[in-house]
Formats: sequence, C-alpha cells, structure tokens
Amino acid sequence: MRAEIVGVGTELLLGQIANTNARWIGERCSEIGIDVLFHQAVGDNLDRIVDVLRLAASRADVVIVTGGLGPTQDDITRDALAIFLGVPMERHPEIEAWLRERFAGFGRGPMPLNNLRQADVPAGARYIQPIRGSAPGLIADLPDGARIYAVPGVPIEMVEMMEGTILPELSALAGPVVIRSTTLRCTGIGESRVAEIVADLFEGATNPSLAYLASSGEVKIRLTAKAPTQEEATALIAPLATEVEHRLGDVVFTRTDERLEEAVGRLLTDAGKTLALAESMTGGSVGARITSVPGASAYFLGDAVVYAAAAKRSVLGVREETLAGPGPVSSACALEMAAGARRLFSADIGLSLTGAAGPEPHGGSEPGAVWIGLDAEHLTHARGYVSTGERDRVRAWAEQASLDLLRRYLEGKPLPDGDRPL
Amino acid sequence: MRAEIVGVGTELLLGQIANTNARWIGERCSEIGIDVLFHQAVGDNLDRIVDVLRLAASRADVVIVTGGLGPTQDDITRDALAIFLGVPMERHPEIEAWLRERFAGFGRGPMPLNNLRQADVPAGARYIQPIRGSAPGLIADLPDGARIYAVPGVPIEMVEMMEGTILPELSALAGPVVIRSTTLRCTGIGESRVAEIVADLFEGATNPSLAYLASSGEVKIRLTAKAPTQEEATALIAPLATEVEHRLGDVVFTRTDERLEEAVGRLLTDAGKTLALAESMTGGSVGARITSVPGASAYFLGDAVVYAAAAKRSVLGVREETLAGPGPVSSACALEMAAGARRLFSADIGLSLTGAAGPEPHGGSEPGAVWIGLDAEHLTHARGYVSTGERDRVRAWAEQASLDLLRRYLEGKPLPDGDRPL
Repeated sequence: MRAEIVGVGTELLLGQIANTNARWIGERCSEIGIDVLFHQAVGDNLDRIVDVLRLAASRADVVIVTGGLGPTQDDITRDALAIFLGVPMERHPEIEAWLRERFAGFGRGPMPLNNLRQADVPAGARYIQPIRGSAPGLIADLPDGARIYAVPGVPIEMVEMMEGTILPELSALAGPVVIRSTTLRCTGIGESRVAEIVADLFEGATNPSLAYLASSGEVKIRLTAKAPTQEEATALIAPLATEVEHRLGDVVFTRTDERLEEAVGRLLTDAGKTLALAESMTGGSVGARITSVPGASAYFLGDAVVYAAAAKRSVLGVREETLAGPGPVSSACALEMAAGARRLFSADIGLSLTGAAGPEPHGGSEPGAVWIGLDAEHLTHARGYVSTGERDRVRAWAEQASLDLLRRYLEGKPLPDGDRPL
Repeated sequence: MRAEIVGVGTELLLGQIANTNARWIGERCSEIGIDVLFHQAVGDNLDRIVDVLRLAASRADVVIVTGGLGPTQDDITRDALAIFLGVPMERHPEIEAWLRERFAGFGRGPMPLNNLRQADVPAGARYIQPIRGSAPGLIADLPDGARIYAVPGVPIEMVEMMEGTILPELSALAGPVVIRSTTLRCTGIGESRVAEIVADLFEGATNPSLAYLASSGEVKIRLTAKAPTQEEATALIAPLATEVEHRLGDVVFTRTDERLEEAVGRLLTDAGKTLALAESMTGGSVGARITSVPGASAYFLGDAVVYAAAAKRSVLGVREETLAGPGPVSSACALEMAAGARRLFSADIGLSLTGAAGPEPHGGSEPGAVWIGLDAEHLTHARGYVSTGERDRVRAWAEQASLDLLRRYLEGKPLPDGDRPL
C-alpha cells in the first residue's frame, strides 16, 4: 500500500516550523509496512491545495493531510477537500452542539461564529471526533478506491487521530502484519558510544530494525519487528533487547519506554518512600517533571526552590559557613539542601540540585558547574560535574543527572561520585 | 520570484529525520522576499526524482533540491538532473583531482572508486565547490529561464552553499527588498477570537502579511512587510501593529516577541520588585519558566512547591480551617499560599497557584479547577477558573494564567476575577 503525506500551512513554507508531522507519520507508516513515496507541503491557498490533493490521490492509495482544519479564515483544507471531491459542504448539528458546549466550558463569553466552520464536513465524508482540540478530522473515500485522511496540524491533535483512528484503519487495510516495538532508554551515555556497543547486533538486519534517538541527556534505542503474529514479533525482539540491555548495563533505566520521571515514580511507589526536592539553578524544573506524572502525590511531598542565597539559609537551613566557604555550588551546600528539604517536608528522601547555569559564573563557580545531593536514612551522597553548553542544556542535563542519581539509589545501583574535583 | 524546495532521500520518507532543511531554506527565502509555494520530498528513486523535478520546474522560477549528491549508490540526484535536462554527464578532472587530494589527506588508504561520481556534472551545468564536505553543489539553467540548484542534504554543507553562493545569487535576482517582522503576543484569548477582532485589517492584503501561531494559552500575531528599504518596511508595519494592539487591548503582553516570563522579568526589573512563588499542581513549572530567563536572580527569590497538604500548612502556614473547609483548591488557600511565599522568602510579591490537574479530582475539586493568588503591599487578589483538557494542558494554561496575572498587576492593568464561582 502506497501513502502520501501532505502538509498544509503557509507557516511551513515560510519556515516558521519544520514539518515534523510528516516525519512522525512517515515513521508510523513504515512500522506497519506502508510505503510513503512522496511528501508535499503547500500554503493556505485554495487552488494550490486542490492541485496538491489531485496529484497525491492520483498516485497513492492513501493520502494523509495535516493542517488547515482550524477555525480561522486561513484554515481551508476542508473547503479544498470538498472542491476536489466535487461535493457540497454539510454542517453537522451534532458537531455544532459539541463545539458550543465545549466553548461554553471555557467561560470566555459567546463562541466566535467562525468556530462553526469546524462543524462542516464535505458530503459523504466521515469525520473523526477530537478529544483534545476542537477541529474534527475528515475521511473521504474516492470512487477509484483511494482514501484521503485530513487531520489538524497541531501535533498532539494529529497524533491523537492517527493513533485512535487512522493507523488502526491502515493496519487493517495493510493486512495481517503485526509490528512490535521495544524501546530501551538510557541516560549518562552518548549516542555514538551506544552505537559502538550494540551496532554489531544489527549489522545488515532489517527485522528487527534498530533506531537510535538522542535528546538532552538521554538515548532511546528502539527495536522494531514485523511478523504475522504478536508472539512471533515478540520472539524476534526479546533476545536482542535482553542482549542490548546486558551490554549497556545500568545506564538503561527502562525497557518499556517510560520517561525517567515515570521510572522514578514507579520505584518510589514500589519502595513506599516519599520524596522532597531542593532546587536552585533549575528553578523548579525537576519538581515539574516529577509532578507531570499522574498520581505523583502518592510519593512527592514538595520542592523548596531556593534561588536566593538567603533562602537557602532561611528556608533550608544551609549554614552561613557553607555559603561563605565552599559556596552555593558545592558538595556541602548540596548535601545541606537535600537534608533541609527532607526535614522541611518530613520526607524519606531529600534530593537537591545546585549549580551555575550560566551565562555568568555563580557563587564563585564557573558556568556549567553542578552539584547534586541525596539525603536518606543511612546515606548521604553528593555528585559534582561540569557540563558544557548553553543555559538550557546545562539545566536539562542537570535534571537528568539528579533524577538518575535517585533512580540508581532506589535500584541499589552504584552511585556516581564527583566526576572531577570542583 | 517563486521558489520550490525539493528534499531527496528515503530517510525523509521513512521518518528517520524531519525535513529541517526545507524549514531553514524557506525561512531564508522569505527573508529576501522570495515566495516558496511548494515543498516536495521524494525517496532515492530515479524515475520519481525526475518526475518531482519536472513538476517543480514547471511552476517555479527557482528549484532548490537537497540531498542525494553523496558518493554512495543511492545518491542519484545528479543522475536524475542529467536525465531531466536531457544532457550527458561529464566528469570534471579538476574536481576529480581535488577529491583524490582530499581523500589522501585522511590517510585511509586508496579512495573508493564510487567517490569519483562526485566529480560528475551534467553537461552545461555549473558546480559549487564544497568547503566542509566532499559533494559539489550543482546549478542548471533551463531554456525557459528557470534555475535548479542542488545541494547536499547534510545541513552544515547545505547551509554553506546556500549562504556562500545561492542566497547571494537569489538576492541579486530578487532585487533590492528588505523584510521586517513585528510579532505581538497575547494570552487569555483564543486564536479564533483574535482573528475575529483583527482579520478585517488584513483582508486581501499581502504586504504587510499576517500570520497567527497558537500554542498553549498563547497566540502570536506576526506582521511581515517587504519594501525597498528598512524605513519603508517599518513604516508599512507600524500603524497596523498599533491598530492590532489597540483593538486587542490588554491581552497583548509584548510587541517584541518576548516570552511571557521575559516580559514579567522586565516588568519586575523596572519596578525594582522581588518575587516569590508558591506552587502546588504545577509542581515547579512556573519557577522553571521564571528562571529560564538569564539574570532572573535579580528579582526571583524562590518557590515553595507544596504538593502535599501538610506542606501547605507547615511550609506556608495555610490554616487547617482553610484546608478542611474550602479545601486546597480555593480562593482562600491560594491567597494564604501567596502570603506565605511572600513571607517565607521576604519578597515584595507572592504569587501562588493551586489546582486539580487531573485526571482525578483533588481536594474535593473537579479536574481542571485552578486558583491563582497574588499577595503584595496594598493588594491581595485571587482568580479562579476551570480549564478543560488533559493534565499537561491544564498545567500549561495555569502557568500562563498565573504569569499573566502578575504581568497585569505590574502593568497596572485590570485583574481578572474568578471567571465562574468555584
């Protein structure tokens, strides 16, 4: 089965955003054995969108269009689709009622009338009810058997409709092939080092296939297998995933594609322990990640963000001598912050993070210097390192390092020390 | 002048990488007044690449092709170009000599013969000498006046040839034109409502042009003008930007594309005031945003993330009666948290945020219920509302709403109350 991906939106052509939707959709299609042969992108121009749809439908079995389904005047994908199909537009009262009810929930006064355009569906087309957004997706079958899907351009809304409706339909059309993926994630190791360690396992192999994805302080390793049944696909992956995990060792924090904060939440829950944080440089980012996991209130008590030196002292009890001596970016300060947070929130574990994010030095420490402290029953531990790069990157890596120190502690794994004297 | 961007490479279709080259090239073209009307992407297939080139050259004055110029067997853009042009390939001895010399410099033994394919140029085409990579770019002029540029897909090599050769050539062809943009950002209003208020100003207008970009809780409005000089471009934009700002009123928080946390930082600096936060539901996200701005330590003292009810009481002094009565998601709790944070960190202003992010109700409040409190000299104020959607969205909107309340207070603008009784 051949698919084509069409992006609609002048913002794509102006280069305001990259067409990451096409990448995501292409990857999902390849996983279920559908060949994507072309991408097209076009601006918010009716004639040109119709031309692009005509070309795509002439050479693909399935066309997936993203963008141009919103409420504003420049959202014209549904109009272009109706013109291409040669059918009138029909307003669906049940969508209209749903839109009005949804808008009323915002408490922002009357709904702008142009929102109602989202209740329009080309005659004969089906629609996909949105959950997160307000723009329904559209599904049109052409007389020659080709099918056009149109979904919103907002990535989260696109993904929702692809996963909820379109990929299952395409899988069914593509026939009996099951795709299974296993994703291992690791932190504290670089992508090229990961490749060096495991690449020989996949030399020349396409089933399972291997993909690496690196983001700040983390490498994902995805193994994907195709087979006629789920059992066979799983059997293809399992021994390789085990070997990859064995070779990489304790840098692997999950085999189930959990985020690091989810892994930490699971481990805290299993151990029946509560956590308190103390942050300085990261300003609350670690707390934000911990609490992004639903149910975090079962183990997370609070976070003292002590950005000012006086607050380190008055809120967490960091000693004057520590601030004046080793300074706010030091092993001693990190340990006193962790102990202070544990005491302040009456938690089982205190985890702290202090550093100089840059661009300026902070408290006598060079930009990029980071100290992480952990305080628990029978254990206090500090780790220091210096990271390179911009402020955002220094912060992101520090979040990762602090959550990973906690993960290792909860798993009983060896804890890294200061990587160099600070 | 009309341009079209063509990406060549099966890795684009498989979704292994996003077509960030198209984004970069589109942005550069728009800056010099060249309209990009379409993108296409195609895999490493000779017939299909020729088809794509033919279509692009039929409707654009300039076609910019990225990818498929390397040494391996699947790099076939130059072959496709020769076929499309209907000319033979010619091997250039000076490129060959350069390739051999370059390879010898690596000390890796004899050069693989397929590297010599990079010395091939379609008859009549010019080439661009690479600096970083080994693949020359290609420039072919068609009989009808259209021009095709082909550059490597490796971003750094693409940028080198675009900046060194192609953009200067295109600028000369496009004539003297300056592009200026002004971006207004607003929060507390939806994209469709913004469009309703300002759309008539831009009806049928292309200079200045108007673009909306909506993200969680925020709408950007970008006005872009082209003119022969900077002064003329600015003169085209300024009155419209002023009218847009006037019509939208105090939902506009910047005319200089600042992030909301940057606007708040600027206002705090100007007022010489210090800030302390108290967060519950958002777990530190507001603090993370405030401290993402370099220099935040001049006005930000700290953030008490009091996730557990006991911490609200012990750390911030929220009263037992408040927690037992109106509960943790209430006007009273938000105000006591704000006052507590102000006191704990000895700050001029305390800003608090408490709510039920979902998916479960929290402290007797339905998912999506949010209260924001502000405590300053001569003012205490609380705002409550209920937002819809997933946990992430509820949190992101609450961050926006709290920062916006602070922004309005610092600007002396009216403060929104509870949007509905909670």
